Amino acid sequence: MAEEKVAVDLSCVQISGTEEEDVVDPWNVTSKSQTGIDYEKLIKRFGSSKIDEAVIERFEKLTGQRAHPFLRRGIFFSHRDLNTILTAHEQKKPFYLYTGRGPSSAAMHLGHLIPFIFTKWLQDVFDVPLVIQLTDDEKTLWKDIKVEEALKLSQENMKDIIAVGFDPEKTFIFSDLDFIGKCPAFYQNMVRIQKCVTFNQVKGIFGFGDSDVIGKISFPSIQASPSFSTSFPFIFGNAKLPCLIPCAIDQDPYFRMTRDVAPRIGMPKPALMHSTFFPALQGAQTKMSASDENTAIYLDDSPKKIKTKINKYAFSGGCATVEEHREKGGNCDVDISYQYLTFFLEDDEKLAQIKQEYSSGAMLTGELKKELITLLTALVGEHQKRRSQVTPEVISQFTQIRKLKYNYS
Amino acid sequence: MAEEKVAVDLSCVQISGTEEEDVVDPWNVTSKSQTGIDYEKLIKRFGSSKIDEAVIERFEKLTGQRAHPFLRRGIFFSHRDLNTILTAHEQKKPFYLYTGRGPSSAAMHLGHLIPFIFTKWLQDVFDVPLVIQLTDDEKTLWKDIKVEEALKLSQENMKDIIAVGFDPEKTFIFSDLDFIGKCPAFYQNMVRIQKCVTFNQVKGIFGFGDSDVIGKISFPSIQASPSFSTSFPFIFGNAKLPCLIPCAIDQDPYFRMTRDVAPRIGMPKPALMHSTFFPALQGAQTKMSASDENTAIYLDDSPKKIKTKINKYAFSGGCATVEEHREKGGNCDVDISYQYLTFFLEDDEKLAQIKQEYSSGAMLTGELKKELITLLTALVGEHQKRRSQVTPEVISQFTQIRKLKYNYS
Repeated sequence: MAEEKVAVDLSCVQISGTEEEDVVDPWNVTSKSQTGIDYEKLIKRFGSSKIDEAVIERFEKLTGQRAHPFLRRGIFFSHRDLNTILTAHEQKKPFYLYTGRGPSSAAMHLGHLIPFIFTKWLQDVFDVPLVIQLTDDEKTLWKDIKVEEALKLSQENMKDIIAVGFDPEKTFIFSDLDFIGKCPAFYQNMVRIQKCVTFNQVKGIFGFGDSDVIGKISFPSIQASPSFSTSFPFIFGNAKLPCLIPCAIDQDPYFRMTRDVAPRIGMPKPALMHSTFFPALQGAQTKMSASDENTAIYLDDSPKKIKTKINKYAFSGGCATVEEHREKGGNCDVDISYQYLTFFLEDDEKLAQIKQEYSSGAMLTGELKKELITLLTALVGEHQKRRSQVTPEVISQFTQIRKLKYNYS
Repeated sequence: MAEEKVAVDLSCVQISGTEEEDVVDPWNVTSKSQTGIDYEKLIKRFGSSKIDEAVIERFEKLTGQRAHPFLRRGIFFSHRDLNTILTAHEQKKPFYLYTGRGPSSAAMHLGHLIPFIFTKWLQDVFDVPLVIQLTDDEKTLWKDIKVEEALKLSQENMKDIIAVGFDPEKTFIFSDLDFIGKCPAFYQNMVRIQKCVTFNQVKGIFGFGDSDVIGKISFPSIQASPSFSTSFPFIFGNAKLPCLIPCAIDQDPYFRMTRDVAPRIGMPKPALMHSTFFPALQGAQTKMSASDENTAIYLDDSPKKIKTKINKYAFSGGCATVEEHREKGGNCDVDISYQYLTFFLEDDEKLAQIKQEYSSGAMLTGELKKELITLLTALVGEHQKRRSQVTPEVISQFTQIRKLKYNYS
């Protein structure tokens, strides 16, 4: 999936008023506000729907499971056609999940985990197939990365993705540079999509210009193709299944285009669930960046590095002096340590308690940071342990072209 | 290969002076002059080199074979870097041949045979591998042809191509829609090429515009890819071989682009041999068109149809009355029947005799047409016989991904 690039369809994305400089597209996410992007306004601009209490209730009722913290806490906050997917599930009709990643560096950071953690949970509660696309071709086209190097980054990223805990019997992971040359049906869908989208359209949606290389211009068809079950005949046979795509909201332009194309090639429109951005250590004005390593906690950071980064860089909502903090309390809305806890601390009561203590001034910034350091050190350590067990053989279990454990006509 | 489309890089192609309306690009070939395109001027405009007596002599000396009639008669009249290929052959260094076709209709016509007949001859005299690309993806993108239909057209066209007499041990034939999804190395080369060419460049070379679909815009990378031996690792291993491409000169823009990209991806520039156009029955102002069946002799035409088409439509260089013709003689420069004989009558002496008799008025148009009818009826009849023997098994001998009879390191 695309991650950091070009200016895009700003007419649809820029938000007026105090946040007028919010920019959200597949390559840029920035906000003027310390509390970050105004997601309510983004929903209006993008024309998506809010994941509200009613949707979450329906989710819980249908699956018989308590909603994931990412749902309960508004981290997955927006959707398109989610009710169609829920109705399909209710009627025992099959669907599948699709998510992905653009492998721009060997080391992934915490923010990259969000869609994968959530997708794994969705797969668990729905018990459906999942395809994961690594757009290494995109990284070659956008960055100074050779084909050979991009293929290696895919291999490295696959280890981190597999370490999230996916089940090889239910999950197909592929790198574009490897897989597209192994599946005629996928290439044929690329061509079908390429036939439905003009340069003018990708100019409007993605901001591509005349100086862009032709590979960039046709790339959106490649990110669109996995939205159609016919791209994977070895998994789905000839079945035309609906698809649900969990992703960060900056990827939405790709799937707006895909949803426009779908009926024209006789396929169902993919449904989407959009997440907010995992903020940079420096504050919620931007998301973590793989190109500045001090903005992010990496999945290969040592405990010492995690501690240093949080203590040194994590933007604090606390007051300047202990006295002032005890008196006025900290501001959880801008405090990055607190924000990170809302992503990763599963215990609702403990989170509420921290919020109360920090806001009231009973808890100091150092203490809050210590909570986060403890949590992330454990989380990253466990991730590293699982990752170390991902051998080339394990990778090939996921990447082999094969039937999954599901049957379709 | 592309055949009939879009307006193109006219600055490079339009010819000033009396032929100022000559248009030559991958989708249009038209001339105001009854004698057709001014090829000498085209060579200057395109910046290619003439296949002159010296080149032909070197050809004959190196191969120990008399030059093919298409060479001796100026039908293959222009080249790029042919001497590099001849030097490689002289030094016993390997190279390979690449040609192709855009399968826009199930029935091919006589004009479509020209590059294949010549390429077969080149393969015979040089004993080298040959790859033949069927750009069915291109036809889907440009025309109202579905993927499934385009794949079928490829199958039909393969029969005609195989009937030319290629050797399956030396020849790999592929349809893009089938093969690209079976060869990661080919897709990887597509991406490498797509990274080197901007929208501005394809706009300049091919005349693409903002309303064109994104598949068209990136398509030139697909026609370029077979020019690089690394696109076929199953044939060439890791060897970086030079490539010689025989094609009609309207395809040159694709390979000008390819030659520009080659050094940037560390590959040798492909060499080219360009043919003139096989003229329409109605005259040399245009080439045969698959969309108007009365402009062409099709490879599935019956003897009766051949006879009718030639008698009815073949533009005559003869005079209005027998008396006038006997006195002034016919004009071979514009007479289509005579032109066709220069393509297909191998006997030089007989051709010279016909020219002499027709020019002098001793031979009437009806007699000249009869010569052509006899020749083409036999040629098409034999082609149909060979084509009828091309079973699906024979096709798969050519299309299977495999090593050919050559060894490379």
